[in-house]
Amino acid sequence: MLHFDSDYMEGAHPLILERLHQINLEQNTGYGLDEWCASAKNRIREACECPDADVHFLVGGTQANKTVIASILRTYQGVIAVDSGHIAVHEAGAVEMTGHKVLTIPGKMGKLDAADLKKFLEVYWADETCEHMVMPGMVYISHPTEVGTLYTKAELEAIHAICQEYQIPLYVDGARLGYGLAAEGTDVTLPVLAQLCDAFYIGGTKVGALFGEALVVPDKKLLPHFFSQIKQHGALMAKGWLLGVQFDVLFTDGLYEKIGAHAIGLAMKLKKGMLDKGYELFMDSATNQQFVILTNEKLAELRKEVTFNVWAPIDEEHTAVRFVTSWATKEENVDALLALL
Amino acid sequence: MLHFDSDYMEGAHPLILERLHQINLEQNTGYGLDEWCASAKNRIREACECPDADVHFLVGGTQANKTVIASILRTYQGVIAVDSGHIAVHEAGAVEMTGHKVLTIPGKMGKLDAADLKKFLEVYWADETCEHMVMPGMVYISHPTEVGTLYTKAELEAIHAICQEYQIPLYVDGARLGYGLAAEGTDVTLPVLAQLCDAFYIGGTKVGALFGEALVVPDKKLLPHFFSQIKQHGALMAKGWLLGVQFDVLFTDGLYEKIGAHAIGLAMKLKKGMLDKGYELFMDSATNQQFVILTNEKLAELRKEVTFNVWAPIDEEHTAVRFVTSWATKEENVDALLALL
Amino acid sequence: MLHFDSDYMEGAHPLILERLHQINLEQNTGYGLDEWCASAKNRIREACECPDADVHFLVGGTQANKTVIASILRTYQGVIAVDSGHIAVHEAGAVEMTGHKVLTIPGKMGKLDAADLKKFLEVYWADETCEHMVMPGMVYISHPTEVGTLYTKAELEAIHAICQEYQIPLYVDGARLGYGLAAEGTDVTLPVLAQLCDAFYIGGTKVGALFGEALVVPDKKLLPHFFSQIKQHGALMAKGWLLGVQFDVLFTDGLYEKIGAHAIGLAMKLKKGMLDKGYELFMDSATNQQFVILTNEKLAELRKEVTFNVWAPIDEEHTAVRFVTSWATKEENVDALLALL
Amino acid sequence: MLHFDSDYMEGAHPLILERLHQINLEQNTGYGLDEWCASAKNRIREACECPDADVHFLVGGTQANKTVIASILRTYQGVIAVDSGHIAVHEAGAVEMTGHKVLTIPGKMGKLDAADLKKFLEVYWADETCEHMVMPGMVYISHPTEVGTLYTKAELEAIHAICQEYQIPLYVDGARLGYGLAAEGTDVTLPVLAQLCDAFYIGGTKVGALFGEALVVPDKKLLPHFFSQIKQHGALMAKGWLLGVQFDVLFTDGLYEKIGAHAIGLAMKLKKGMLDKGYELFMDSATNQQFVILTNEKLAELRKEVTFNVWAPIDEEHTAVRFVTSWATKEENVDALLALL
Repeated sequence: MLHFDSDYMEGAHPLILERLHQINLEQNTGYGLDEWCASAKNRIREACECPDADVHFLVGGTQANKTVIASILRTYQGVIAVDSGHIAVHEAGAVEMTGHKVLTIPGKMGKLDAADLKKFLEVYWADETCEHMVMPGMVYISHPTEVGTLYTKAELEAIHAICQEYQIPLYVDGARLGYGLAAEGTDVTLPVLAQLCDAFYIGGTKVGALFGEALVVPDKKLLPHFFSQIKQHGALMAKGWLLGVQFDVLFTDGLYEKIGAHAIGLAMKLKKGMLDKGYELFMDSATNQQFVILTNEKLAELRKEVTFNVWAPIDEEHTAVRFVTSWATKEENVDALLALL
Repeated sequence: MLHFDSDYMEGAHPLILERLHQINLEQNTGYGLDEWCASAKNRIREACECPDADVHFLVGGTQANKTVIASILRTYQGVIAVDSGHIAVHEAGAVEMTGHKVLTIPGKMGKLDAADLKKFLEVYWADETCEHMVMPGMVYISHPTEVGTLYTKAELEAIHAICQEYQIPLYVDGARLGYGLAAEGTDVTLPVLAQLCDAFYIGGTKVGALFGEALVVPDKKLLPHFFSQIKQHGALMAKGWLLGVQFDVLFTDGLYEKIGAHAIGLAMKLKKGMLDKGYELFMDSATNQQFVILTNEKLAELRKEVTFNVWAPIDEEHTAVRFVTSWATKEENVDALLALL
Repeated sequence: MLHFDSDYMEGAHPLILERLHQINLEQNTGYGLDEWCASAKNRIREACECPDADVHFLVGGTQANKTVIASILRTYQGVIAVDSGHIAVHEAGAVEMTGHKVLTIPGKMGKLDAADLKKFLEVYWADETCEHMVMPGMVYISHPTEVGTLYTKAELEAIHAICQEYQIPLYVDGARLGYGLAAEGTDVTLPVLAQLCDAFYIGGTKVGALFGEALVVPDKKLLPHFFSQIKQHGALMAKGWLLGVQFDVLFTDGLYEKIGAHAIGLAMKLKKGMLDKGYELFMDSATNQQFVILTNEKLAELRKEVTFNVWAPIDEEHTAVRFVTSWATKEENVDALLALL
Repeated sequence: MLHFDSDYMEGAHPLILERLHQINLEQNTGYGLDEWCASAKNRIREACECPDADVHFLVGGTQANKTVIASILRTYQGVIAVDSGHIAVHEAGAVEMTGHKVLTIPGKMGKLDAADLKKFLEVYWADETCEHMVMPGMVYISHPTEVGTLYTKAELEAIHAICQEYQIPLYVDGARLGYGLAAEGTDVTLPVLAQLCDAFYIGGTKVGALFGEALVVPDKKLLPHFFSQIKQHGALMAKGWLLGVQFDVLFTDGLYEKIGAHAIGLAMKLKKGMLDKGYELFMDSATNQQFVILTNEKLAELRKEVTFNVWAPIDEEHTAVRFVTSWATKEENVDALLALL
C-alpha cells in the first residue's frame, strides 16, 4: 500500500533521532529549563530575526492552540477564525472547554479575508447590543490553511493592520508552516511572521520532528506567567529538553527549510503529474496537501492500493480527495501514485 | 556534578530508543489507532490480568490526571485527595481549571487513611447543608505517594470498600508505579490495582520511557467517549504510536519490572549506606525517593558536588533533603554520593 | 413617549405585587424549600398534566439556559441551536463559559427545521473524524422564537422524534411562552410541551412576573443533583419563595393565560392596523413581537415619539423595526402608535 | 414557632415594597441602564465618599462572589480565603467552576490574620516550584465574617498593606455588611471600605431588600467590560431597575443604617439576656448572629418552639447553636426566646 493520508505517518528526521540517541543518557533539568531548549530558542529567535522573542515548546497543535488562546483572551472574549479553521472544527471543542467562543467568519479558500474581518469587527462594535455578545478578542488564522492555501505578505499585513486598529492580537497556527515557507513564490518568511503576528507557532510534528511545536511570541508581554499556564493545561513536558533537542536540530544548517522543500518538490511533481493526466484540481494548493477530483470509480479502484482522504463530494459521480506529502515522502511513491492515477 | 534531583533527567531506556529507531520510517495511522498501540494495550491487559480493560496512552502525568478527573466527575462534584497530593499542590490548578474542586484530607505519611476518608464522607453526607457544598465524586491517591510511601494491599482494599459503599470511583496516579511495584515486601501488583481501582495509570515518563503514561480502566463503561475528551484536553498525540511503541517495549520480557528493580536496588543501597553512616531518615521510604536529614553545613558542602532537592526545614541547624534514583542511575554515582556524605 | 421596546419594561402584574405585599413579613424557609414554591410547583405540574415533573425556579433566562445546558451536557458535548438562537448570539458566551460549544444550524424564520436537524446529526455521525469534533448532546429551541414565530405541534413532534432517535434531550426556552400559548391557532399547549420536551421553562420575567422562570423537567432523572448545580451557577435565590409566590399567582385562575391573551390581542390589533395602513410586514408573527418595514424617513419621524427596536436594514431607504406588546401594554398606547404610523 | 434561623426569612422593608408598588407600571429601560439605578449608584457613591466608584447591582451573594472573582483573576491565579470562608465551603464550588482554586488559610475566629496572609504569600513566592502552583491573585474576606466577627480598621489596613505590597486586589463580601456597620464600637465604615478595598459588596438580601447586592469598585479600571461578564454569568437582571429601586430606598434617609441598628439592638439584648441567665457564648459576636452553648437537653426542648441552627458539637452533652436577628425581627420574639431559654 501507498500512504498519502497525512504528514504525520512517520517518526522523525534521521538527524533528530540520531541526536536523541547521542544525548540519551545526558542528565538534563526538567520542564524546558535546560541548555538544549536555550539553544533551540536562540536559533529560532535568529531565524525569526527577533532577538527579544519569547519561545515556548509545546507537544502538539491543539494543545498549543488552546493554551495560547485561553491565555490571551479575557473571560468575556472570543477568538475569530474562519469557519473551516482547525479550532472551529477539529479540536473537539478544546477552545470552548476553556470557556471561550470561536467566532467564525466564512473563509475564502480556507483563508480569512481582511475585508471580511474588518466588516465583522465593525458590525460587532456598531451593534447596540454588543455588550450582550461575545467580544472578539483575538484573531486565529493558519498558514498554510487547512486546505493548503497560503496568505501573501500583503494579505497578512492587511489583517495585521486591522488587528492593530482594534487592538486585538493576531495568532498564526503554523502546524504545517515548514511547507508554507518552502512553497514556490511565497513572500511570507519567519521574520515576516515575527513582524506581523503577536504569536505564531512553528510546527514540528508534521515537519520532521517526532512531536513538538515552537511558539514564538515577539513581544513577551503578551503572555505573562505562561509557564504556569502551560502546566495548568497539562502541556508541560517533564523532559522538556526532548522538544529543545528536536528544534535545535531542525534549526541547524537549514534543516527545517530543506525538509519543507523536499515535501513541496514532491507535491508539485504530483500536482503537475495529475494535471498532465487531465485531472481537475479541487483547489490549487502550493503546499504539501494536494486536492484533486476523481471519478468515484477511480476512487474505489485507487483505494485498493493507496490510502488517502476523501475530502468532499462533488456530484453524483465525482469526489474530491486529498493526497499529502511530507518530509518523509519517497519520490518513488509519488511516481507509483501517478502511475496508478 | 552528581545528579539526584529527579527520576526524569535522562531520555529513555536504550531498548526503547532502539525500537523507535527501527520503526522510524514505518508509516503508521495517527491518534493511537495503530498496531503498536494495539500490541502495547494487549501486553498491559495481560500484565494486569484484566482482559477487558480499556487502555489509553497520554503524554504526561498532570495531563493524565486532569483528563481523567474532568471526564469522571459531574459538574457538581469534586475529587478527594490528601493535602500533599500532586493534584492538590503541584499541578498549577489544572484540576480546578476544569471546574472541579480538590477536596483535601490531611495525609498520613503522604497516604490517604481509609478511616479518614470514611469520616470525611460521613460528615459530608450528614451535613444538612451538603447540597451547598461540593459533593465528593471520586478519590485520587498516588502509589507510590509524593513522599515515596506505599499502600499495602489491605489499605487499598479498605479504601476501595469505602469507595464502593459511597459509589465513587477510585483513581490511582502511578507516575512512579514501576518503583512501587519493585519495592521490597509490597503486596500491591498490577492485577491488584486492576481489581481495586476504577482507573489507574502506569507511569512511563519516570520509569524508562521518553514520555508517556498508560491509563488502565478495568471497566470501560467508566469513561465513555474518552477519545474525544483526550482530544479536547489537547492531550491526543498525533503520532500516537510513539506511545504504543514505548509501552510495548516496556511490557516485553519484563523490562518494566527490571528497570524498577534497578532503581530500587540502588535506592536501598543508598538508604543502607546513609543509615550506616549514622544519618537519620526524614521518612522511611521503600521506593526510589530517599529522604534524609542533613546538617545545614553538610547540605551546603554537598551542594558543591551534588544536585538534589531541599525538602523541608527541620530546625535551625538541620534540613531534610531528597535523593532520587531511577532506571538510569549508575551504581558508581550512588557510591560517589555515599562517599561524599 | 410611547414605549414598544420590549416586554420587560414594567414591574409585575398587580395581583403578584399584592400577594408579595400580603406575605411580606411571613417567615419562610430559604432556597425554595418553602410552601409557596411547593404550591406553585403543584399548580404548574397540573397545568402541564405532568404530575411527576420536577419544577425548579430560576431568576432569568440566560441563567436558566446556561444552568440547564451545563447540567445536561457531558464535557465532550455541545448544544444544537439555530444561528439566531438566544444562546448563540445574545448571552455573551454564557454557554461557552461553561465549556460547551453552541453548534449552529441556519434557522428558518427563527425556527429549527426538523429535516435540517436530522441532516446535521447524520453528517456528524457519518464523519470519519467525528471523534475530533464536538458531539451534539442536546437540542435547544425557543418557543416563541427570537423573531416571534411559533412551532406547530407537528413540527415539535418531528424534532422530538429525531431527538429520541439520537437519544439527545430536547430543551425549549420559553422566555415568552405565555405569548406563544395565547397565539391564535396554535396547537402547542403546556401538556404538549411536557410530552415532547425533556426540559422547558415557562417564562415569568417577560410575562407578568417581576422576574423568574419556571423550569419543567418531565422526567426528573434528567437532572440529578440540580439544586447544587443551581447553587454552583450562582442562580440559587436565598428567598426562593419570591419565585414560588409569583408563579403561584400566575398559575391561579388562569392568570398566565389571561395576560398572554391581553398582549396577543393588542399585538394583533397593531398588526392589522399596520396592514390596513399598507405597511409591509418584515415577518408575519402571531405573537407579541411585530416586525414591520418602515421608510427611513418614517422611522426617524417616529423615533421622536416612540421607542422601539431597529431590527434589520432592508435597502437604502427601508428598515425593519420591531414593536413589542406585553401583559402591561395599554390599548390606548397601541391606538396612539397606530395613529402615528 | 419562633424563627431565628437566618436573616433572610422575610420579604423586604415596607418602604421598599411601597416604592416597588408606586413605580410598578412605570416603564423602564432594562439591564440596569435606568434612572433608578443611576440614582441608587449616586447615593451609594456618596455614602462611600467615593465619587468615582463603579457600582454594579447583582442578585445574590454567591453570584456576586463568583462573578467578581472570575473577572478579577487571570486563569493561572487563585483567590485566598480563610478556611471557613463562604466561597471555600458553602458555594457548591461556584468559584472552582469558573476555573479558579480557592487557596485557604486557617482563619482566626473567622477572620484572616494579616500576619498569616503575609506568611502565605512569602512562602509561595519563596518556593522554587511556585510556578507549578496556583498563584495567589486576590484576597477574599467577609465583613462581618461567617461567624459574625468583625475586622477593625487597623486589621483591614494591615491586610490592605500586604495586598498592595503583593499587588493583589482585596475583595470584601458584605452579605451582612449592614449589621457590621451598625455594630457597637466598630470603626469600619463605608468610606473606610472604599479606601482599603479594591471591591466590596453591600448586602441587600439579608439587610432589608427582597434581594440584591451592590458591588462597589472604587477604581473602575479593576473590572473592565464587567457588564458583559455579569451577563455571561447569567447574573444580569432584565428588569435591573428592581435592584436600583431597592438600593435607592435603602440609601435614602439612612434606612440602611437604621435597619442595621434594629437588628444589632435586638442581638445585643439577646446576648445580654443569655449571659444574664448564665449561658456561655460559643463566640463573642458583635453582630446579628449570636452563638451560644446549650445542653443537648435544652436544645431538644427549645427545638419544639424555636427554629435555629445547630452550629457545632462541643462535647457529649453540649452543642453550640446560632440565633440570628435581622431588620425584621420583632422585639417580642426576642423576649419570647429569652423566656424559653
